[in-house]
Amino acid sequence: MTNFKTIATAATLIALPSLAFAQDTAPSFDEIGPYIMTTLLFCMAGFLVFFMAAGFAMLEGGLVRSKNVTMQMTKNIALYSIAAIMYWFMGFNLMYPGEFNGYVGSFFSPTVLDPVGVAAADAALDYASVGSDFFFQLVFVAATASIVSGALAERIKLWPFLIFVIVLTGVMYPISGSWQWGGGWLSEMGFSDFAGSTVVHSVGGWAALAGAIVLGPRLGKYKDGRVNPMPGSNLALATLGTFILWLGWFGFNGGSQLAMGTVGDVSDVSRIFANTNMAAAAGAVTALIMTQIMFKKPDLTMVLNGALAGLVSITAEPLAPSLFGALWIGAVGGIIVVVTVPMLDKFKIDDVVGAIPVHLFAGIWGTIAVVFYNGDASLVTQLTGIIAYGVFTFVASLIVWFVLKATIGIRVSEEDEINGLDVSELGMEAYPEFAKG
Amino acid sequence: MTNFKTIATAATLIALPSLAFAQDTAPSFDEIGPYIMTTLLFCMAGFLVFFMAAGFAMLEGGLVRSKNVTMQMTKNIALYSIAAIMYWFMGFNLMYPGEFNGYVGSFFSPTVLDPVGVAAADAALDYASVGSDFFFQLVFVAATASIVSGALAERIKLWPFLIFVIVLTGVMYPISGSWQWGGGWLSEMGFSDFAGSTVVHSVGGWAALAGAIVLGPRLGKYKDGRVNPMPGSNLALATLGTFILWLGWFGFNGGSQLAMGTVGDVSDVSRIFANTNMAAAAGAVTALIMTQIMFKKPDLTMVLNGALAGLVSITAEPLAPSLFGALWIGAVGGIIVVVTVPMLDKFKIDDVVGAIPVHLFAGIWGTIAVVFYNGDASLVTQLTGIIAYGVFTFVASLIVWFVLKATIGIRVSEEDEINGLDVSELGMEAYPEFAKG
Amino acid sequence: MTNFKTIATAATLIALPSLAFAQDTAPSFDEIGPYIMTTLLFCMAGFLVFFMAAGFAMLEGGLVRSKNVTMQMTKNIALYSIAAIMYWFMGFNLMYPGEFNGYVGSFFSPTVLDPVGVAAADAALDYASVGSDFFFQLVFVAATASIVSGALAERIKLWPFLIFVIVLTGVMYPISGSWQWGGGWLSEMGFSDFAGSTVVHSVGGWAALAGAIVLGPRLGKYKDGRVNPMPGSNLALATLGTFILWLGWFGFNGGSQLAMGTVGDVSDVSRIFANTNMAAAAGAVTALIMTQIMFKKPDLTMVLNGALAGLVSITAEPLAPSLFGALWIGAVGGIIVVVTVPMLDKFKIDDVVGAIPVHLFAGIWGTIAVVFYNGDASLVTQLTGIIAYGVFTFVASLIVWFVLKATIGIRVSEEDEINGLDVSELGMEAYPEFAKG
Repeated sequence: MTNFKTIATAATLIALPSLAFAQDTAPSFDEIGPYIMTTLLFCMAGFLVFFMAAGFAMLEGGLVRSKNVTMQMTKNIALYSIAAIMYWFMGFNLMYPGEFNGYVGSFFSPTVLDPVGVAAADAALDYASVGSDFFFQLVFVAATASIVSGALAERIKLWPFLIFVIVLTGVMYPISGSWQWGGGWLSEMGFSDFAGSTVVHSVGGWAALAGAIVLGPRLGKYKDGRVNPMPGSNLALATLGTFILWLGWFGFNGGSQLAMGTVGDVSDVSRIFANTNMAAAAGAVTALIMTQIMFKKPDLTMVLNGALAGLVSITAEPLAPSLFGALWIGAVGGIIVVVTVPMLDKFKIDDVVGAIPVHLFAGIWGTIAVVFYNGDASLVTQLTGIIAYGVFTFVASLIVWFVLKATIGIRVSEEDEINGLDVSELGMEAYPEFAKG
Repeated sequence: MTNFKTIATAATLIALPSLAFAQDTAPSFDEIGPYIMTTLLFCMAGFLVFFMAAGFAMLEGGLVRSKNVTMQMTKNIALYSIAAIMYWFMGFNLMYPGEFNGYVGSFFSPTVLDPVGVAAADAALDYASVGSDFFFQLVFVAATASIVSGALAERIKLWPFLIFVIVLTGVMYPISGSWQWGGGWLSEMGFSDFAGSTVVHSVGGWAALAGAIVLGPRLGKYKDGRVNPMPGSNLALATLGTFILWLGWFGFNGGSQLAMGTVGDVSDVSRIFANTNMAAAAGAVTALIMTQIMFKKPDLTMVLNGALAGLVSITAEPLAPSLFGALWIGAVGGIIVVVTVPMLDKFKIDDVVGAIPVHLFAGIWGTIAVVFYNGDASLVTQLTGIIAYGVFTFVASLIVWFVLKATIGIRVSEEDEINGLDVSELGMEAYPEFAKG
Repeated sequence: MTNFKTIATAATLIALPSLAFAQDTAPSFDEIGPYIMTTLLFCMAGFLVFFMAAGFAMLEGGLVRSKNVTMQMTKNIALYSIAAIMYWFMGFNLMYPGEFNGYVGSFFSPTVLDPVGVAAADAALDYASVGSDFFFQLVFVAATASIVSGALAERIKLWPFLIFVIVLTGVMYPISGSWQWGGGWLSEMGFSDFAGSTVVHSVGGWAALAGAIVLGPRLGKYKDGRVNPMPGSNLALATLGTFILWLGWFGFNGGSQLAMGTVGDVSDVSRIFANTNMAAAAGAVTALIMTQIMFKKPDLTMVLNGALAGLVSITAEPLAPSLFGALWIGAVGGIIVVVTVPMLDKFKIDDVVGAIPVHLFAGIWGTIAVVFYNGDASLVTQLTGIIAYGVFTFVASLIVWFVLKATIGIRVSEEDEINGLDVSELGMEAYPEFAKG
């Protein structure tokens, strides 16, 4: 930003020879408009999805007990940061390898951006800038890691968790992601997952499920055959987190149109906005009504998770359905959450924030629901994709969790867990002045 | 999102025949640029206004007592979700009926989006995609319902409130909205309300006023001729909510330009941003100074409401005024709040968050202020509009509230109110671990 | 927003003659596209940076003790509002005076926006609309003032602080800003500061440092040669604030490209997004690792400040570095924070939120780091700029603080400080119901 009122144009021309050259050749807006619009779409959708990192942090911070809030904050800002570094270092090019065998691309190829002031002649005019594409993809992988963070809260150690995040965001997610979005074997087969009900959300869910099993439930959660509720410490924060996630989802699904420079594309982006919103609304209302009927009292945390499940459900195909389609697909997502949250407890799988029902179960549902509105999708292929992602992610995660458990250990001591991770692991309380009731 | 690095364009052409056709005819960016920009404006403004739902939730959640926070969260996410569904189901087409008698359009006509990948030839090239338009309008009606939620907090039952929301967002708001924005009789008459000081904010305020009268004040609020203050439980949250609302207002007013594809339009959008910001700033500063002078101590909740009143005040005409115009219009909004909040208490109308001063009184002021900068507006017509919206909304709301009161009842029992709605109605506390002081 | 489905275009043509004229001459999108895109960039970046006001408020509100939270909220919303008014009243044209002596432009020239519906012929087609430019610049000055607010928390009186804000945002920041971004002497000399590591952040830091020295530390902070920790009251809120700031930084740095209408420009914006994100991530991870090593326990507040320091570090040159460059520049920012926070305590300079390490020290570092990737920058010139901004801002701030101290006083009484500013200065608690532990 320099002296821009008087000499901005001149400065640009001087400073950026390649741009000057581009302007010499003077490509018309017909040629460059789509590139500009799609790059803008990725930047805009990217910052919205980035903000989901805050949404996950607030949702999870609101649903854990106050003695573990600092740890939850630490994990969430750390996992986002690690994901950003790992995805640059190896993830992005592992996931989008160009020509490859369809199963695993090349490791250790850090991302290289377009040169400064890239000329039109050197840019991918039928797509978007590398920087925007990289940024947009990177915020997705962070979402996957955030899902794990919530499920395993309140008893996992910080560093083993972060090591898992390194593997998940640098290796596991990019490899399985390449099968579909990198043009690999599932993509060849015709699997359809528009914005990632499976590729992003169920992957996070499977990793979380494996972790929850290996880690075991929180002390006292299942005792004498009863489920001991451990209410979240700040439901205002959890609600804020849900709204932020909902906001971010417009970028998550809308940006996955991957183009905004034609009438059809920008209209599709707006279709996706409308459908995404509808599915979330339907999930929330369904959970509200169901908890009223089943428990006689509406349950806010179920409503929040219902909205999120609606969002996950529509993510595999937010474009093709009508608004009514989005409504019922999202509503089924809401039902799934209300039904499966208690089900997990029956199996003594302790998912602190309901991440597995929301992201895994509703993610599977959403991936199946594609067949109702997308004529190109087949149920068999969709199930193949669901199973492939499930087996790979669950097994790989189990292995990583077991290795971590066997080596450095993944769980804090009983005493530390009772005292809370904030004091024992971090020596710092989130709300040091508020007396405990 | 599929394999986009290598075959994105090809896939698009194959998957979307209509788009392929559009690209065959190759409309130039001159033809489609405005459509793309305006659709983008609605998507962007739409997500900003969507986020106002979170802003209202945080503002109201911060201004109620902690025993009612879970309920306030539940109401706010539920009302947004219901508004989304009702506006699809009937509201949007009731509000924008095309040719109609000018008073009431047709009921029960759910919204239908543009087809996937709509061709340029089939799109409203002089406007924007249906999906973007629908989404942008939908987030407005949710704002109206949020206003009611705040005023009636801490004593209204959940389900009667949500039934009111159904009627408000599906019937009342769309009908009165059609008078102006649907091209109805007030629009014909020349009434001017750019982004909805009256159509959105005062409508919410009137509905809230009717509800507050029918519902009565909170227990102990007015006792022995004195006003008993009931301080909000979390002013950090209320401040966050105000900032989020302020942020969303750039979309609220900026998006109401309804076009971004010409030099004049995008410049106007930026004019609106600058004026909207100025009015909010002026409202906040005015409330700060006035509370210092009147009460000897600045009052944060007044400052927050002052900013909001500044925003509501400029909403009827955020484009025409100069920055100085925006400043004094917003400042008067700030004065109105400081003066009328105690006034409502004199009438024993218990508005928990100050929604009626902010949205109704400042809304009326803003609608009148249009005449100072918009040469086409006449005071008589502005007053006609104000009164028409007031009479219709207030009377219709009164009827709905009375019917609800006479049938299922709208108010919790005294015991439940004293215990707090969270425990009595929802069985769940927002801050279960923080001891009460 | 009026009747737009049926007559929007017609109404526009009637209401806005100048626009109608513009459309008569029918400029092609080739001519107006860049203007539209850059104006949009400023609007979008502007609302993101606006939201940083909320980020600062939440960060600071989370890091002060609960007895001072209401005051911190009041200061932050008031300072933003005052900055908005002062920057209109004199700041903007003082900072961007056009032709001037290179040191001080003209005072008291309020901003005038483009006319409503400005014609293409009358618009700055090679740049952007005045409204968007003004709005974008205005949110920057508010950031500067927010920095001061955090450092001086918990003991400064409200009104003297706000008077300082008036001087800072109306006079000091615009004058020094004009040296570089207004085309003044430092710009002539070749000083390089893309988005304001020095112009914005170090200026805020110098003003804060001067204030912290004049004001003195909080009671009991340094006692018997020991540093008494005073933990923040709400680390969830502080984390939210950090995420909001990170989000806003995409606008802060991305918008400073000052153009989005060519392939090179929009690609550069996305490069900046990617680099900005990387530097923040690197700062956070570095602080995490360093606190683990140095203190044996990771420190969340250091991680938050590490992310922010990474952001400040990359702000002087977010475009030229590679992603690896952004990584190590941001990492050094993280190191700086961890090292200099205790250092300030040694000098008994009490910076409540760590604003001086983050914004001043990392700002200096970022300004120096420009030389590694920007071939046009020289170390001598960079140091000249750093010193010039430092001397001017520090000395001017010292003078203002001393004058305020000598006249109306800047510090609350000991009793008021012990009781907390909320009760003593405002008569209002942020969390009135939460018992103190």
